[in-house]
Amino acid sequence: MPKRNISDISHLIDEDLKHFNEQFKHSLKSKVAIVDLITRYILKQKGKKVRPLLVLLSSKIAGGVSERSYRGAILVELLHTATLVHDDVVDSAETRRSFPSINAVWKNKIAVLMGDYLLARGLMQAVDGSDFDFLKVITNTVKRMSEGELLQTSKTRKLNNDEETYFRIISDKTASLLSTCCEVGARAATVDENKINAMKEYGENLGIAFQIRDDILDLVGSKTLLGKPLGGDIKEKKITLPLIYALKNSSSDNAKSVIKTMKQSESKIDVNYVIEFVKKNGGIEYADKVAKEYSSKAIQNLSIFENSEYKSALEDLALFVVERTK
Amino acid sequence: MPKRNISDISHLIDEDLKHFNEQFKHSLKSKVAIVDLITRYILKQKGKKVRPLLVLLSSKIAGGVSERSYRGAILVELLHTATLVHDDVVDSAETRRSFPSINAVWKNKIAVLMGDYLLARGLMQAVDGSDFDFLKVITNTVKRMSEGELLQTSKTRKLNNDEETYFRIISDKTASLLSTCCEVGARAATVDENKINAMKEYGENLGIAFQIRDDILDLVGSKTLLGKPLGGDIKEKKITLPLIYALKNSSSDNAKSVIKTMKQSESKIDVNYVIEFVKKNGGIEYADKVAKEYSSKAIQNLSIFENSEYKSALEDLALFVVERTK
Repeated sequence: MPKRNISDISHLIDEDLKHFNEQFKHSLKSKVAIVDLITRYILKQKGKKVRPLLVLLSSKIAGGVSERSYRGAILVELLHTATLVHDDVVDSAETRRSFPSINAVWKNKIAVLMGDYLLARGLMQAVDGSDFDFLKVITNTVKRMSEGELLQTSKTRKLNNDEETYFRIISDKTASLLSTCCEVGARAATVDENKINAMKEYGENLGIAFQIRDDILDLVGSKTLLGKPLGGDIKEKKITLPLIYALKNSSSDNAKSVIKTMKQSESKIDVNYVIEFVKKNGGIEYADKVAKEYSSKAIQNLSIFENSEYKSALEDLALFVVERTK
Repeated sequence: MPKRNISDISHLIDEDLKHFNEQFKHSLKSKVAIVDLITRYILKQKGKKVRPLLVLLSSKIAGGVSERSYRGAILVELLHTATLVHDDVVDSAETRRSFPSINAVWKNKIAVLMGDYLLARGLMQAVDGSDFDFLKVITNTVKRMSEGELLQTSKTRKLNNDEETYFRIISDKTASLLSTCCEVGARAATVDENKINAMKEYGENLGIAFQIRDDILDLVGSKTLLGKPLGGDIKEKKITLPLIYALKNSSSDNAKSVIKTMKQSESKIDVNYVIEFVKKNGGIEYADKVAKEYSSKAIQNLSIFENSEYKSALEDLALFVVERTK
């Protein structure tokens, strides 16, 4: 087990996160009753707040937390929340953080509109604060996230993913937002482009390491810890790094047979057969090695900063994401 | 019939619209194959381009068309397109401009993501052009449009709309974007806040007049001209201005009976009964009178500008929206 998990790391900046939570709550107020009702519902579901944590720690390491850091943290959290609300619509998800999803309670129509509303609120806040540097970063991120998801969707239909495309997808759909969190946090604290770039790279590498670990856990994690059955990606025909490696490093007949299984309708796919194939052909070890390389790169990106408790926290976070079991 | 329809008015700035179309096409390019495929599909469906027309005419009347006018026109058209793509998801619409809708061809998942992508592209373009004044206006508009739709959805569930709420809804969901088109067009041409405000007000009044006419046509338009059956709003339990007036000006028993009909499930609602009730109680005449008042106000807003063919075009547009039959 890693030294510190996300809660341990969060404790380091408890006061800053408390201040963030108050401002975040305030930023969600609306005169329209149903909007207020739904935002209160969202606020009840306390997530881990990883993205605000990244913004604030990046500010800390790059020079200190300012009002602009909080505005950046609210911006990324609003964008992230908007994305989750839309994700639950597109995946027809019934629950989110053990609560019924917005689309389950209020139907798709309201969920799509609420996602648009939350995104607009985040951007408005950046405009009102004249944070045009944040806007430049964040609008590009929204574009990359949707492009990444769209590319993934088109690849899953054709079942022909390769390593290059896999990295492009996870960089766009996952790493881009974490990289943006770190960049925004650094920009709020300094104008030193070396420091800003270092944090941007750290976030990118952290995000890639995080997503590879996610894809590994989907195959060999603990069903109980994850709170969901294994092989969800296989059922959704997502070809992730462990499987890409295994397909390339097995006999052509075996690879063909796995692809044939995955081409069937969801209920007919033999998930265990595919998981065993990945394990037997070294896919898990390979993906684990690659994830750890990205984690090391992330830690390396921090080397230009002086030692501090915040630097240690970001180092531990990079270790945590590749060792976590849920 | 009005003097000129939208095509006639568009002809006046054919060259500018051609230039806009080329730039709009260029702004949609993406390296992701499926994104490119879908945007080409969207471009095939040539809409009336009312919003770019408003931006460009507003620039013309306020000082002249510039590169910034085109950027503004692209921004509003991207936002409008994003909204339509999301609307078709929330309404489970099968067609759009006689083409199968994006959600019908590529499913909801891709449609929600494409909407997000188009919105992000529009905003990115404004950031890249340093059009921060446009961003301030447009992010507020996205917020208002989603709030307006959300308010409408919650009101339709309760069947208790009143005139004040009706105007708030149509101002937010429809007039806000038309007002933004005119404001953005004016801002691209002048720094004179009087002119900017006049165009903003013109767009707001035009939008309200347009929406009231839309709501009238839903009750008494020609099924053939509209290309859809009458009473769609009644089936969706939307209480629009003609019905609000009729309910207030009829006996309490009759009003109760209409509400009772509308509370039933969609297939059981007697649409003709409700339409006859609205007609008999003066709802159509009242709404028509109010629409024309807003149209007059819009024309009045133009009075500070010198006479020109562009001013005449905007005046004719205000007349057209309340006299149109489809």
